[in-house]
Amino acid sequence: MSPTQLLSTSISSSSSAFLAAPFAFKARNQNVSFASKTPSICTCAAAPQEQKTVYKTQVSRNANIAKLQAGYLFPEVARRRNAHMLKYPDAKVISLGIGDTTEPIPEVITSAIAKRAEALSTLEGYSGYGPEQGEKPLRTAIASTFYAGLGIEEDDIFVSDGAKCDISRLQMVFGANVTMAVQDPSYPAYVDSSVIMGQTGQFQKDVEKYGKIEYMRCTPENGFFPDLSKVSRTDIIFFCSPNNPTGSAATREQLTRLVQFAKDNGSIIVYDSAYAMYMSDDNPRSIFEIPGAKEVALETSSFSKYAGFTGVRLGWTVVPKQLLYSDGFPVVKDFNRVVCTSFNGASNICQAGGRACLSPEGLKAMSEVIGFYKENTNIIMDTFNSLGFNVYGGKNAPYVWVHFPGQSSWDVFQ
Amino acid sequence: MSPTQLLSTSISSSSSAFLAAPFAFKARNQNVSFASKTPSICTCAAAPQEQKTVYKTQVSRNANIAKLQAGYLFPEVARRRNAHMLKYPDAKVISLGIGDTTEPIPEVITSAIAKRAEALSTLEGYSGYGPEQGEKPLRTAIASTFYAGLGIEEDDIFVSDGAKCDISRLQMVFGANVTMAVQDPSYPAYVDSSVIMGQTGQFQKDVEKYGKIEYMRCTPENGFFPDLSKVSRTDIIFFCSPNNPTGSAATREQLTRLVQFAKDNGSIIVYDSAYAMYMSDDNPRSIFEIPGAKEVALETSSFSKYAGFTGVRLGWTVVPKQLLYSDGFPVVKDFNRVVCTSFNGASNICQAGGRACLSPEGLKAMSEVIGFYKENTNIIMDTFNSLGFNVYGGKNAPYVWVHFPGQSSWDVFQ
Repeated sequence: MSPTQLLSTSISSSSSAFLAAPFAFKARNQNVSFASKTPSICTCAAAPQEQKTVYKTQVSRNANIAKLQAGYLFPEVARRRNAHMLKYPDAKVISLGIGDTTEPIPEVITSAIAKRAEALSTLEGYSGYGPEQGEKPLRTAIASTFYAGLGIEEDDIFVSDGAKCDISRLQMVFGANVTMAVQDPSYPAYVDSSVIMGQTGQFQKDVEKYGKIEYMRCTPENGFFPDLSKVSRTDIIFFCSPNNPTGSAATREQLTRLVQFAKDNGSIIVYDSAYAMYMSDDNPRSIFEIPGAKEVALETSSFSKYAGFTGVRLGWTVVPKQLLYSDGFPVVKDFNRVVCTSFNGASNICQAGGRACLSPEGLKAMSEVIGFYKENTNIIMDTFNSLGFNVYGGKNAPYVWVHFPGQSSWDVFQ
Repeated sequence: MSPTQLLSTSISSSSSAFLAAPFAFKARNQNVSFASKTPSICTCAAAPQEQKTVYKTQVSRNANIAKLQAGYLFPEVARRRNAHMLKYPDAKVISLGIGDTTEPIPEVITSAIAKRAEALSTLEGYSGYGPEQGEKPLRTAIASTFYAGLGIEEDDIFVSDGAKCDISRLQMVFGANVTMAVQDPSYPAYVDSSVIMGQTGQFQKDVEKYGKIEYMRCTPENGFFPDLSKVSRTDIIFFCSPNNPTGSAATREQLTRLVQFAKDNGSIIVYDSAYAMYMSDDNPRSIFEIPGAKEVALETSSFSKYAGFTGVRLGWTVVPKQLLYSDGFPVVKDFNRVVCTSFNGASNICQAGGRACLSPEGLKAMSEVIGFYKENTNIIMDTFNSLGFNVYGGKNAPYVWVHFPGQSSWDVFQ
């Protein structure tokens, strides 16, 4: 969620379960710091001071980017962390910021990556430009591992350097003239990329929302699934389940309603299933488990949280050939065109890692990694429960959503 | 260049010097095939046949993408290659299509990549999300290797998954309302990404150009440097030197004129220096060698053609903090915002390879790889010269530009 959304929601802090070691909160006001991954090189909130002697081009700044209210959330989290560390150099910081991974990548996967890297120094093992859409064996393995029996074929799958990157490529495909809906709260890249592409109006300070975006409220009261009878029609519906940041997962019945809602409205669902392997309940792992979804949905996912690939960078997006624009043109052809123009395929070395992930040994190793994070999630949930807070999520996702009554998110963060 | 540009230029074929082995053309009409790297999954030129029973969403297709006249050039080259191979299965295809690399990556580089991959399976060596802008040691090494003494600092440099990807991110930064100029002929990603972002008008079939783009004609007559007195002012000027595809490199005097032209017009130069290490003459390797360039230019580059990283994916873009929009806002802050929103950094494994490239052993190994391709370039030049063709480029770039009088590019290709 964006900082502004954080402030506007009554549920005021998300906690990532990606912790290196178990921990416990001792008391509500203890000096616990929240950290993120990396210092940002600059904050973008204020214009620089003008100097008379400075040369300026005559190129106008992109008015859409100027609409953005602050830096991307996680660099801002990092900035506050760093400021805190300067003030309290001895503070022991536990990162509850970005959902970063801390567990080593299973050796069966890294050895496959290393082997591919070494092969690149031989004439037989060398490969140059690969297919922009990804190497065929990996696309086939993704289809059979995650979409068996769902009618998704290898050529519906595009391997990428991560779901976040694909979200922006999808926005380029849709262009400036679509309208979009998003869960509230939600992963900030949906809204921010929409603003950058010019799909939104100005930021409205009174309601702390961007104009033209349909915010679908997800709260404990509605079980973190929006009341679709109150949601206006939009062209695009971003929907993440299991959800970042609330940790909730939509049921089969809820997703069936969502697909019907999209079909009634002629909308396209961008379904983010990056946490599907964390599911404990019998909820769908893919939107394509819902009959008819291929005509109204595409799906993006990632190896990041399954295999610790947050730094390695590997994900995929499924665009079924049945998904058509109003003029009957397949969305997949335009997505392919943007992928070919704006991307050159994921690194061949990382794709070797992806294939290893989907081998029988790799799948077993990934489920152990996921088990570790789920254990951490349980520790966080138990801790906050024992402190008397209302705790949501956690069961089907590595995210825990805690209610701090009467406090804004940034207040809790500080 | 796009297929349409190919057809409209009197210089009608580019030849890549990236060949696995020396070869010679025996005769002008010999059955030599031109191949590219990968089959495309679809061609996007024609709308599918409509069926009455098919469900369509009510989302309108992005009108900007619909302007594109054909698939991206290189998949089209691959499509024709594959059709040829089906017809003549025994044909020995020599790829003169996309500038792909064929030489193995030096072992000093792959071993560093493998080592980093293996370290990721240990608690000490593991890293998750890295800085979106790239790891600091690599940014520092790029600054000191390629920009020493030019006033470019580590925080001006953004490590990426390749120059092509950064070009699209730059287009997102600039938005739909800028005007752009491009060398004619040029690398097709500039124009195609501009069309996708909505910066252009419709394709004009009579002149085979997109409306609103300023095509800067580069021919043997003007030494492949545009006559700037005939170029209209645009916001953005894409300029690639050493040039893909003509193989020509701009001199210091020419680049000084280009920078002055940009300064007079308040334009921003996007300088593509992906082939700088192929320079034999004493021309600038970076636009920042020209005094004042930091106020009007940014630069994108790549490890692809230096170390055989076309499949590994690693590049960088330099955005000097001195480069300002008309309102004084630094371009680098908006580029950083887009990079943080639409990208999650280049793969940490590949960045380890980048650092190895810039070690003393890596630099020596890269110059040997470049030497190999330059030797191939010489063979191609000598061959076409001996056949009586006019041959350009080749000396400062891996590209050779051959004049086939009276024939269109696609005719020569076929």
